[in-house]
Amino acid sequence: MDIRTQKTFEALFALEDIRETLRQTLPNITNSEEEHSIKEGVNRVRKILDDIEKGTGIPEVRKIAGTIDIRSREETHINIQPIQAAGRLTPEARKALIAYGDGYSTCDACRKPFRLDKITSPPIAPFHEQLASFVNMDVARVVPGARRGFQAVASTLVNKGDSVVVSSLAHYTEFLAVEEAGGIVREVPLDEHKLVTADATAEKIEEIKQETGKLPVLVMIDHFDYQYANEHDVKGIAKVAHQYDIPFLYNGAYTVGVRPVDGKDIGADFVVGSGHKSMASPAPSGVLATTEEWAPRVFRTTQMTGDLTKRKFGVKEVEMLGCTLMGSTLIGMMASFPAVRERVNNWEDELKKSNYLINGLLAIDGSRVVSEYPRKHTLSKINTSGNFDIIAQEHKRRGFFLSDELSRKGIVGEFAGATRVWKLNTYGLSWEKVRYVVDTFHDIADKYKLQINKENNSNGNK
Amino acid sequence: MDIRTQKTFEALFALEDIRETLRQTLPNITNSEEEHSIKEGVNRVRKILDDIEKGTGIPEVRKIAGTIDIRSREETHINIQPIQAAGRLTPEARKALIAYGDGYSTCDACRKPFRLDKITSPPIAPFHEQLASFVNMDVARVVPGARRGFQAVASTLVNKGDSVVVSSLAHYTEFLAVEEAGGIVREVPLDEHKLVTADATAEKIEEIKQETGKLPVLVMIDHFDYQYANEHDVKGIAKVAHQYDIPFLYNGAYTVGVRPVDGKDIGADFVVGSGHKSMASPAPSGVLATTEEWAPRVFRTTQMTGDLTKRKFGVKEVEMLGCTLMGSTLIGMMASFPAVRERVNNWEDELKKSNYLINGLLAIDGSRVVSEYPRKHTLSKINTSGNFDIIAQEHKRRGFFLSDELSRKGIVGEFAGATRVWKLNTYGLSWEKVRYVVDTFHDIADKYKLQINKENNSNGNK
Repeated sequence: MDIRTQKTFEALFALEDIRETLRQTLPNITNSEEEHSIKEGVNRVRKILDDIEKGTGIPEVRKIAGTIDIRSREETHINIQPIQAAGRLTPEARKALIAYGDGYSTCDACRKPFRLDKITSPPIAPFHEQLASFVNMDVARVVPGARRGFQAVASTLVNKGDSVVVSSLAHYTEFLAVEEAGGIVREVPLDEHKLVTADATAEKIEEIKQETGKLPVLVMIDHFDYQYANEHDVKGIAKVAHQYDIPFLYNGAYTVGVRPVDGKDIGADFVVGSGHKSMASPAPSGVLATTEEWAPRVFRTTQMTGDLTKRKFGVKEVEMLGCTLMGSTLIGMMASFPAVRERVNNWEDELKKSNYLINGLLAIDGSRVVSEYPRKHTLSKINTSGNFDIIAQEHKRRGFFLSDELSRKGIVGEFAGATRVWKLNTYGLSWEKVRYVVDTFHDIADKYKLQINKENNSNGNK
Repeated sequence: MDIRTQKTFEALFALEDIRETLRQTLPNITNSEEEHSIKEGVNRVRKILDDIEKGTGIPEVRKIAGTIDIRSREETHINIQPIQAAGRLTPEARKALIAYGDGYSTCDACRKPFRLDKITSPPIAPFHEQLASFVNMDVARVVPGARRGFQAVASTLVNKGDSVVVSSLAHYTEFLAVEEAGGIVREVPLDEHKLVTADATAEKIEEIKQETGKLPVLVMIDHFDYQYANEHDVKGIAKVAHQYDIPFLYNGAYTVGVRPVDGKDIGADFVVGSGHKSMASPAPSGVLATTEEWAPRVFRTTQMTGDLTKRKFGVKEVEMLGCTLMGSTLIGMMASFPAVRERVNNWEDELKKSNYLINGLLAIDGSRVVSEYPRKHTLSKINTSGNFDIIAQEHKRRGFFLSDELSRKGIVGEFAGATRVWKLNTYGLSWEKVRYVVDTFHDIADKYKLQINKENNSNGNK
């Protein structure tokens, strides 16, 4: 870790120690010991600030709670990790974590009817409305991760033995949500471009109908899949699902929070998004949004009555298990939301950066892009079997040579040791960083005498 | 908010802004604009430090992301809120939130077999082992809240129409977990001391058997209930459950993390704890621990195979939906754990403080304690219908007079406006603070001419 980053963490931590002293004091009363401790803390931070300014000093705090390294990946590196990019917090979210870390910090002003999404201070209730309108749906709830959104819908709609249509590129959490509900996943095949089409979905539905005598109870498709981040025809698929009167779940784990999503236009009955994947939010967080039509089912309130006490917990929603995301996880999500709502409008520029980087990689002779091309997403899968992997075969560090070279230049997040087929993500990187990454790859190629065709960036989709 | 607390937040936030600049720089390269911004940031923090030291200055940052107030309840008040006490973060947990806020921060070193509880850096895998041994069980998983633990167990064991035995004081999340799984809750009656006994549980099981012809599939009892925090005979109840071959779920939402819990000694098949309620952890967090016998069922791995691709996601656990608690929520929990593991040994002293406060309240003529007495927990329900509520009836602020008086002295967390039956929690308060709270209640009583019997604190369980 560079010393300025190290010292910034030390200053933050020293301030947390001052804060702890404030927490221990009686209201508006400090004793001399506490005063001394605050004074010492302030002086400690002052010294650290000198180090930040000058870039001097030696690390004094190496671990949190004795065992946990300080994580400085985002400060000291350019991170091209495939799933971390759009989950990076905004500074506002980090401030929210500082102020709302305590477990039930959201619940200070919880009043009747005692449900998280009804709390107005902090403004959780209006946030829920904004969230619904952000994806153009009627009602939204926050959930601990997109997977808990799939679970709520599957648990509502799927009975034992029911079929659920998913993509051949479905994320594993969709499998698990269906399995937990007792259902069976049925995969739609991909076409030659590795895309799920409306026609293929219709054929799959027909096949299931003929085979089982029953229609599937849910169609659940990823707008962009986790493997290639190819764009699938969710709108056409939703239309097909509705022709069979089957509800459609739009999996927006890779879209909600990075590009515009219009649930109504798509024809989604359910929109699921991931906070920590695409909404610059702490984990685990996500959103489940639905229509007025489906809300009474997926957000149904409890009907269970205590046989003896006759207790009934009226407004609590069964699939949400009452309140879902308390504390800093939710407030972090809320704090990032204004920036997230804005950033989806930059998607075209994000795609330009994505394609710039992919083109830069393709310029190295032997590269292929495995994802559809030109890229419609910032996550991409590439194949460097024809260049970096050939080097790796002769290199004493094997595939790790590439990680070594990249990390020497401050780039991390590629799958360490992988030189054949691997993924990267440019989301949120500045143009300056994207150019730096391309230049670095070219420098590495040069070093190992790989051919670079800087003029010809079009040898994409082989 | 007092100015020193305000300025401490401002310093933390200003450092986050410096950190953001570091995040935007290229690796090891800063341009002059970035240098300028860091320098300005450092100078800003310096000025804020002067204010912290002297207790001067005016608030400059009022909101996070424009809409969210800075929460300073723990810094500026003594918080007696019933469910927040044991969820307050340790300083180490707050540092962990700072360092690990980004969504997938836990996943930098995720390698095969790609499951959260297998990650060794940060030390998530050993933490899971420590967690299991902390409650003396064989296997543990972290979950997004105790409720998600109930859900995992109910979803595993409960089929449509199955009965689940719960307490007449069961928490609503137990109701919901059973309802979501299609089961029916059956409540064990309380005895005259508002306790669930082993005998009453046995009778309830017999009653269910006779009525439905089937035994209940699960007995799920709170060691200390959320209403009175009375201690129920979980060990005796576990024994009864086992006599009928019914598994026993120990609900430790109010125990795991505040007092010693020995799952094996109790005879628990499942131990559920809450991170944000009792383990000084961010929300939503919790633990589900079980035995070698039950682990293969509740933590069963996925058996679902893609019909077309034949994909199977081997090690992913169905009820966990794969990975559960990523990012800062988990790392916060881990960072608090050494302190949590230690603090359970102070339970006797916590009980002394709890009883000191309750005795102090009972000394005011007309108070009654609704919870069992002497207190075996730090959460208590009291009845002040006979004193503060009588004042409230004549006061122009009605029940809010008490909140006004308390908050004037820096005490918050009682249910605002409540003067009849209300709850409070002394967990984690220093003796100094507990004495201050008692003195404050007595001062208020004095002010309103209520009788205080400082010699006679024994008029408890009327």
